[in-house]
Amino acid sequence: MILGFGEYEQQARALAAEAGRAYDDVLVHRFPDGESMVRLPDALPPRVVLCRSLDHPNDKLIELVLAAAARVLGAQHLTLVAPYLCYMRQDRSFHSGEAVSQRIIGNLLAGHFDALVTVDPHLHRVHSMEQAVPTGHSLALLATDPVGDFIGQRVPGALLVGPDGESEQWVARAAARAGSDYVVGTKVRHGDRDVDIDLQGDFEGRDVVLVDDVASTGRTLEAAARIIQAQGPASISVVVTHALFAGDALQRLEAVGIRNVWSTDSIPHPSNAIPLAPLLAGALVV
Amino acid sequence: MILGFGEYEQQARALAAEAGRAYDDVLVHRFPDGESMVRLPDALPPRVVLCRSLDHPNDKLIELVLAAAARVLGAQHLTLVAPYLCYMRQDRSFHSGEAVSQRIIGNLLAGHFDALVTVDPHLHRVHSMEQAVPTGHSLALLATDPVGDFIGQRVPGALLVGPDGESEQWVARAAARAGSDYVVGTKVRHGDRDVDIDLQGDFEGRDVVLVDDVASTGRTLEAAARIIQAQGPASISVVVTHALFAGDALQRLEAVGIRNVWSTDSIPHPSNAIPLAPLLAGALVV
Repeated sequence: MILGFGEYEQQARALAAEAGRAYDDVLVHRFPDGESMVRLPDALPPRVVLCRSLDHPNDKLIELVLAAAARVLGAQHLTLVAPYLCYMRQDRSFHSGEAVSQRIIGNLLAGHFDALVTVDPHLHRVHSMEQAVPTGHSLALLATDPVGDFIGQRVPGALLVGPDGESEQWVARAAARAGSDYVVGTKVRHGDRDVDIDLQGDFEGRDVVLVDDVASTGRTLEAAARIIQAQGPASISVVVTHALFAGDALQRLEAVGIRNVWSTDSIPHPSNAIPLAPLLAGALVV
Repeated sequence: MILGFGEYEQQARALAAEAGRAYDDVLVHRFPDGESMVRLPDALPPRVVLCRSLDHPNDKLIELVLAAAARVLGAQHLTLVAPYLCYMRQDRSFHSGEAVSQRIIGNLLAGHFDALVTVDPHLHRVHSMEQAVPTGHSLALLATDPVGDFIGQRVPGALLVGPDGESEQWVARAAARAGSDYVVGTKVRHGDRDVDIDLQGDFEGRDVVLVDDVASTGRTLEAAARIIQAQGPASISVVVTHALFAGDALQRLEAVGIRNVWSTDSIPHPSNAIPLAPLLAGALVV
């Protein structure tokens, strides 16, 4: 049985339809004092899949811990489908005394779930999903196929641009799928909202599509767009897997002349254009 | 060593001074995407006391779980001082399928801390702190002494009123300490914000002090004040242990003619008038 949670209900319902599984909702109520109440269907089958992305994660993490009460209601095997997974960036102590949140939150999730499915996690120094979230069955899917297919249809002949060298393999796959060529830049981050980009390429007259795994402040995409814009491209669009878009990120992207902003539906957002249900359903055959 | 957290720093510092312990801060940073970063002092002694009240708890619970990384930095025994403790009300499934959050959050805390000190927890059907949060060393203190002393000084000759029969023992203790008489009412709760009160007493010409463990929406205090007001008291004041005061609660209390609202400093709030440091320090002798 697939259970959808709060703001992720619609996507969870689509996943259940795609996977041919029964579906029900988890009800979440937030009290005036900031506490959460979670209500599950009152009789559960042995295998249960809980679906919710973990953007703005702290409330959602506590609600997932509460929902692991599914075991009291009959579930014996709990899978978490969290297309956007939180706390993957702090994979070491950058300053002495800093809690390594990737490991701690990974252990918290692994303590409550028997399996995890996520999409394009933002891993740096840790190279396996199992190392980050040790459930025993942790799976990281790539959104490169649905993203590449989408770009191939909507912007045929596009030049794909990955702002960050770390994403080269990802961009190469999406470009191959879209039938496009690609370039990648180099990113230097100075703080939460302060990013420099080095990006070389021949953008003049091209339909450029900036691709990235996640857009939060949008500073990286904005910096890349400025460099491209200076060469007179035909158009610039953005496709991201995870549409976090904090604060005025979208307005700033518009302001530098980005024509379209598209995202997968991993995080509910007006830019959602690429459903992940087919990709996720493929991972639920186990 | 005593470690203070975010908004609870000042109280933690006062507690350290009162208990004659070393003090340091835990730094908390919230990223634009809603994730938290926690930074601890980089060398910790074997016994560490983390101090933070858990009102609006979900972010704070995740940050406490992150702070339990103290063990990596030398701590062997972690005590949590959380004068206001969260998730104590949902101690059973009121409807089928509801997660029993008291037990789940109690186990989460017990999984990360070796001891717990709290004040006036809102326990109903569960009668020991250890049953709610099974650390092995969970202690619930009563604020009746500091509250009673405060009322005795500020409103000598007051009539104490507990809106809820469940609080009778608590009110009796505070009244004895204040040198006051008291009455208690009966509360019927219909929803988060919908409360009926049955309250009998001779309030005419008296300085009435409404006392309660926690004020969230303030509806209970408001309903009690209306009944008392109808008899023409000399004054009505409010003293609560935990000043949650959601939304417009304070304005509504003013609107029914409540003269003073006082609270302990368990939750930082403009009404704080009764420091808990002496009470808490007494519990840290172990």
